[in-house]
Amino acid sequence: MISKILIANRGEIALRVARTCREMDIRTVIAHSAADRGSPAMEYADEAVQIGPPEPRRSYLNAAAIVEAALQTGADAIHPGYGFLSEDPDFAEICEAAGLTFIGPRPSLIKDLGDKAEARRIAAAGGLRVLPGSEHAPGSVGEAMLVADEIGYPVIIKAVAGGGGRGITLVRRRQEFAAAYAEASANAQAVFGDSRVYVERFLEHARHIEAQILGDRHGDVVHLGIRDCSVQRRRQKLIEETPPPDLDPVTAERIALAAAAAAGHAGYTGAGTYEFLLDEHGDFYFIETNCRIQVEHPVTEMVTGVDIVREQILIASGERMSIRQSDVLQRGASIECRVNAEDPERGFMPASGTLERFEIPGGPFTRIDTQCRPGFTVPPYYDSLLAKAVVWAPDREQAIARMDRVLADFTVSGPRVATTIPFLREVLAHPLFRSGKHTTSLLDQMLDQS
Amino acid sequence: MISKILIANRGEIALRVARTCREMDIRTVIAHSAADRGSPAMEYADEAVQIGPPEPRRSYLNAAAIVEAALQTGADAIHPGYGFLSEDPDFAEICEAAGLTFIGPRPSLIKDLGDKAEARRIAAAGGLRVLPGSEHAPGSVGEAMLVADEIGYPVIIKAVAGGGGRGITLVRRRQEFAAAYAEASANAQAVFGDSRVYVERFLEHARHIEAQILGDRHGDVVHLGIRDCSVQRRRQKLIEETPPPDLDPVTAERIALAAAAAAGHAGYTGAGTYEFLLDEHGDFYFIETNCRIQVEHPVTEMVTGVDIVREQILIASGERMSIRQSDVLQRGASIECRVNAEDPERGFMPASGTLERFEIPGGPFTRIDTQCRPGFTVPPYYDSLLAKAVVWAPDREQAIARMDRVLADFTVSGPRVATTIPFLREVLAHPLFRSGKHTTSLLDQMLDQS
Repeated sequence: MISKILIANRGEIALRVARTCREMDIRTVIAHSAADRGSPAMEYADEAVQIGPPEPRRSYLNAAAIVEAALQTGADAIHPGYGFLSEDPDFAEICEAAGLTFIGPRPSLIKDLGDKAEARRIAAAGGLRVLPGSEHAPGSVGEAMLVADEIGYPVIIKAVAGGGGRGITLVRRRQEFAAAYAEASANAQAVFGDSRVYVERFLEHARHIEAQILGDRHGDVVHLGIRDCSVQRRRQKLIEETPPPDLDPVTAERIALAAAAAAGHAGYTGAGTYEFLLDEHGDFYFIETNCRIQVEHPVTEMVTGVDIVREQILIASGERMSIRQSDVLQRGASIECRVNAEDPERGFMPASGTLERFEIPGGPFTRIDTQCRPGFTVPPYYDSLLAKAVVWAPDREQAIARMDRVLADFTVSGPRVATTIPFLREVLAHPLFRSGKHTTSLLDQMLDQS
Repeated sequence: MISKILIANRGEIALRVARTCREMDIRTVIAHSAADRGSPAMEYADEAVQIGPPEPRRSYLNAAAIVEAALQTGADAIHPGYGFLSEDPDFAEICEAAGLTFIGPRPSLIKDLGDKAEARRIAAAGGLRVLPGSEHAPGSVGEAMLVADEIGYPVIIKAVAGGGGRGITLVRRRQEFAAAYAEASANAQAVFGDSRVYVERFLEHARHIEAQILGDRHGDVVHLGIRDCSVQRRRQKLIEETPPPDLDPVTAERIALAAAAAAGHAGYTGAGTYEFLLDEHGDFYFIETNCRIQVEHPVTEMVTGVDIVREQILIASGERMSIRQSDVLQRGASIECRVNAEDPERGFMPASGTLERFEIPGGPFTRIDTQCRPGFTVPPYYDSLLAKAVVWAPDREQAIARMDRVLADFTVSGPRVATTIPFLREVLAHPLFRSGKHTTSLLDQMLDQS
């Protein structure tokens, strides 16, 4: 059994992981940048090692420094959280080579699923439907255009090394394709260090649905149901919920079971998410697999009662999961809102500074995951997440009412600090969101109107 | 439907009630004493009325001032919380006479159940077993002694107007009875304004078990399962949990169903608690009914998903409850610890002052009900409750681990401030508590040893 975990992350997720470790009697080491010296996560962990300067490349993305910190402190496992190195197969491999347990799937699977073209093939082999698109990264713009012609416009050009909504270019007309292709390749090279892209049909008015999967090393795979994450701005999720609204339970179960079957076929171990687009006919198409814990995992925890981080640690220890599929009971409805330090009035520009006041809401069936507190300065180097507000209720209508109350109950202020709270409350009040019939274009529609 | 509620209480329960009101789109008025001016509960409510000076008798127990505040602010209902006037039939009657809905059972039932001798008769008529004791308050010490002789020693002398663990005198030997009886009567007169007492068998090594009941005005009664509140110091609860540990589900269900049947027989409306002593043979004896929301209600909310305050408001509005018995599903285990500003090293003396630091734990399946925050001064006029720490987990073992983590994660400091946190952690670690075989004498045993 693992007895000491190095947490290679920061912010709320570092705290989240450390809390479960403490409950499991596992010691924690936090590997932090100079910017996060003195952070609540650092104070919370049993030990702390500064691994580099504020810039992510030299700290949270510095695999060698992280592994060295783990070895120095005698950690026997590394939890990568989300983002940063969490889906980097090289990092996972370096960990394993150094005798450290990487808390996630095996490196070769992370690698295959990280290649978005390869991931499509694996998913299809596992029985999932994929959107029509190029089987491999096309060799030239001409080859790519032939694929696009065959699919029919609009299409999207996706970076092979992308993921999490990044590296996606929409092309509506044939005459725009060549220029978009060149730009997409150049961007992919610049951002991901890999110029390869592929072409896929663009599904308009679809819902973003994802299945939470757990697989252990004894061959058991379970799903914890599905989430709807259709409320997105520029492909970044703002509100997530489970169960998906206005979706019949049969389709929901079909999606979850299909994801579990595909995960089983791939020999998936650890926690993972299978992401889909769901169209108005109830057909769902695989987008990608996320080989890590997800920002929005708490909504699944709220309805299933399963501590996903705990299961990750059990699985990485070689133990059996604590649950079988028949134990998984989804009860009620849960919603998460991401409270970001961004100014919706100014195009969601980051608007962080020192928090003079930071009071979080309490109350029944409410969970606030945050690393902030009064006096805390949100470092400008990383994301703008202030807090994840999560609520549970017996049904969606009550969950929305509770979330609105919770958002209203936040007190966040400081010079230059703005938050997405007023905008989130607008979304919650929007008739289309209330109806549950919204798609990923909801926010574009709302923001265009205003 | 009720549209504005006056909350005739303070502290965490006032906040708790106000949050649910906000979720139900009900406006709130807080009636507060001068000592609670500027309190978080006052800030949270939509309106606030100062009803008197700090002393409870002239504020939170001042029925006339409270009713006047409700009428002045146009409230149509009064939520009494727990303690103070929550079980005062005269107050309930004054409310109703003034055209205000009292959120609780009808005044005549509060009156009957508040008379602990009458409550025994009602319970017995409703099918519950009561401990052998005097049917009525004995007319003289001689009559009382005859009853005690018949029952056999040890016996307890209970104030007819007592309740909540107050007004109870234990008599182990016959030769002590007369003096104890005289003292108990005098105390009852002094504390409750009613010198009547009655005699009952004392059950040693019993567990305190209680059933949460809800009844509406349409004749429906449901139970939300039972709680174990055996961890008591001087009959005051410190740790409560559900389901009761080391208790077979059949006995648990028998107790809950018996309580629901008795509540149905009494025509109970609102939220209430039927308290029992459970002996080692699985026999359970009615102690008393609490006609109000209970301090420990959150553990029941955690396992059932039912917002009890919401149901109270629905019931008082004349609506049907949102649940039927078949909807009530108890999942997992929940524990509550009362974090008091008391010094366990000094006989649990109140030790409150201004809180310099007050940081509450977060994390999955954790709920902290509190009115405290940094800079807050706990007023010396009322109880010493700083916070209720509540956790949920799939089973008791994990819930204990989580609670220990949560208690460790509190940061509470200030001049002269001490808390029960270290003591609570000792109890959680105690082998007898871990075994779940402890009775109400656990703390006496622990405190005698130390």
